[in-house]
Amino acid sequence: MAKRKMILDLDTGIDDAMAIAYAVGAPDVDLIGIISSYGNCLVDQAATNSLQILELLGATDVPVFLGEPHSSTTEHFDVMPISQQIHGMNGIGDVELPAPKRAVEKQSGVDFLIDAVHQYGADLTLVPTGPLTNLAEALEKAPDIASTIGNVTLMGGALTVPGNVSHYAEANINQDAEAANAVFTSNMPLTMVGLDVTLRTLLTKTETQQWRDLKTTAGEKFADIVDYYIAAYDITSPDLHGCALHDPLAVGVSLDPSFVTTLDLNMYVQASGEDYGRTIGDPARLNDPTNVTVALTVDKDRYLKTFMDYLTTLFKQH
Amino acid sequence: MAKRKMILDLDTGIDDAMAIAYAVGAPDVDLIGIISSYGNCLVDQAATNSLQILELLGATDVPVFLGEPHSSTTEHFDVMPISQQIHGMNGIGDVELPAPKRAVEKQSGVDFLIDAVHQYGADLTLVPTGPLTNLAEALEKAPDIASTIGNVTLMGGALTVPGNVSHYAEANINQDAEAANAVFTSNMPLTMVGLDVTLRTLLTKTETQQWRDLKTTAGEKFADIVDYYIAAYDITSPDLHGCALHDPLAVGVSLDPSFVTTLDLNMYVQASGEDYGRTIGDPARLNDPTNVTVALTVDKDRYLKTFMDYLTTLFKQH
Repeated sequence: MAKRKMILDLDTGIDDAMAIAYAVGAPDVDLIGIISSYGNCLVDQAATNSLQILELLGATDVPVFLGEPHSSTTEHFDVMPISQQIHGMNGIGDVELPAPKRAVEKQSGVDFLIDAVHQYGADLTLVPTGPLTNLAEALEKAPDIASTIGNVTLMGGALTVPGNVSHYAEANINQDAEAANAVFTSNMPLTMVGLDVTLRTLLTKTETQQWRDLKTTAGEKFADIVDYYIAAYDITSPDLHGCALHDPLAVGVSLDPSFVTTLDLNMYVQASGEDYGRTIGDPARLNDPTNVTVALTVDKDRYLKTFMDYLTTLFKQH
Repeated sequence: MAKRKMILDLDTGIDDAMAIAYAVGAPDVDLIGIISSYGNCLVDQAATNSLQILELLGATDVPVFLGEPHSSTTEHFDVMPISQQIHGMNGIGDVELPAPKRAVEKQSGVDFLIDAVHQYGADLTLVPTGPLTNLAEALEKAPDIASTIGNVTLMGGALTVPGNVSHYAEANINQDAEAANAVFTSNMPLTMVGLDVTLRTLLTKTETQQWRDLKTTAGEKFADIVDYYIAAYDITSPDLHGCALHDPLAVGVSLDPSFVTTLDLNMYVQASGEDYGRTIGDPARLNDPTNVTVALTVDKDRYLKTFMDYLTTLFKQH
């Protein structure tokens, strides 16, 4: 099977950890690197978490790079209390994992991304599941990557449902709406996997119990981490009856777009005012060709089956 | 051809006038009545305009009923200056038409609607192209109509694009968000034809010139009326390069749903705060069955061809 070159750009919280597991477990992925971002936790913590999760899954060949520590319009970043509530103080449900043996790479995440696009071009898939700061920075430094990268499938935004940090803004986009707007209005081939679909794709303790029952370290640690997330969702989103598979769904859609139905739509990201962070169609460009496709519905049963196949098979071995 | 029983609920401005022409010109419609609403003009003016347009088109057999004069939460209604700018002081582009020979019916529009649903049930299509005040009032008075009416295809709302009276609210919904919310969250079979598609379906002076060239009274009067609208759009929405066929598109979709692609989505209407009037998906009911389908894209070429066929054929005869 020809493997897809993939880079993940993660603010490694809990669903980011599941995104790593999905990418490591998928038979058709060559995960060539993870870029670290701020968001669910600080950028250094996110890098440490990524290294720890990779080691837990036996994927110690995957390098981890540091991205930007804060948004393009600020000089500092503090983790929001709601993020700490959902992902724990350490970003992975306050579960303890051994200190990583592998160190963070010396090259910056932005430069790694640019080099990888230049090396692999259309064969490269980027999946950002945090703020779009690193991608916007790379785009500013090397504008040619917009037309050469194979595909960007991002977790972020909300088109047909309200946001989750305001009535308008989804958390990742809200971290840096200016960067997101630069990405959305570029000519980059972009698939938006937002709350529209991720809130339709839920995981419950029934599934984490299956991991726990494997009696492996990876199975038990992931069950602990995700149970923390499910418990947080019980408080913040009691209507959902489970936790949303935000980030791993983006990885899944990047590999198999037929998991979702989509709408092609020229969009912009509101970068000022009360609707800061809103991802919405541009009325002036409704009839123009577009680079953006938005996931609207998802075959949740088939996705969840694939998700559980990949993760359970992987956890069995570690 | 079996004709569809149809009721229009109009705040008869300019695109409402085109909606009347579409319904009168469509070979498969039995237009059994028009209910008058406030919005683009006052409710009495809207009724007068509907009677005048019907007479202009030789459709003097269609009765016109008065609906509610203001929203469900107010005691009074004044036409917004922007509505006067777009539709003219008299609602139909300040074009003069003869005083109508037919009078407004004595029965209220709400009672007419309830009686018609009881009489025709699944054979009845309602197309509201103004505020949803009359429909919500009918629903409150006779809740059974929600499950017995054949179809409601409304012009209103905006899901994937911003609103046109605020960043969130489309004008019709904005007039009475409480009423709209009652309709959207009922179990009525509802198709939303909002700005998502109506801004994609544009008419220009090329088309109105074709009407003018017919040298008939209807052709010339409609060209005058719609040219006023196009001129107003040139100022308020210069990016569009034409006027939006809001209301006649709803009539078209009610007859031929294949003009549009749609998303099934449980929605609510925000009825308080800065996003008053926003029509948006309900995250808590994303995976539930739904009564609402939202038009997202439109085959604008085929629709415009049908629109011009119906209207031009009609205007030739009057």
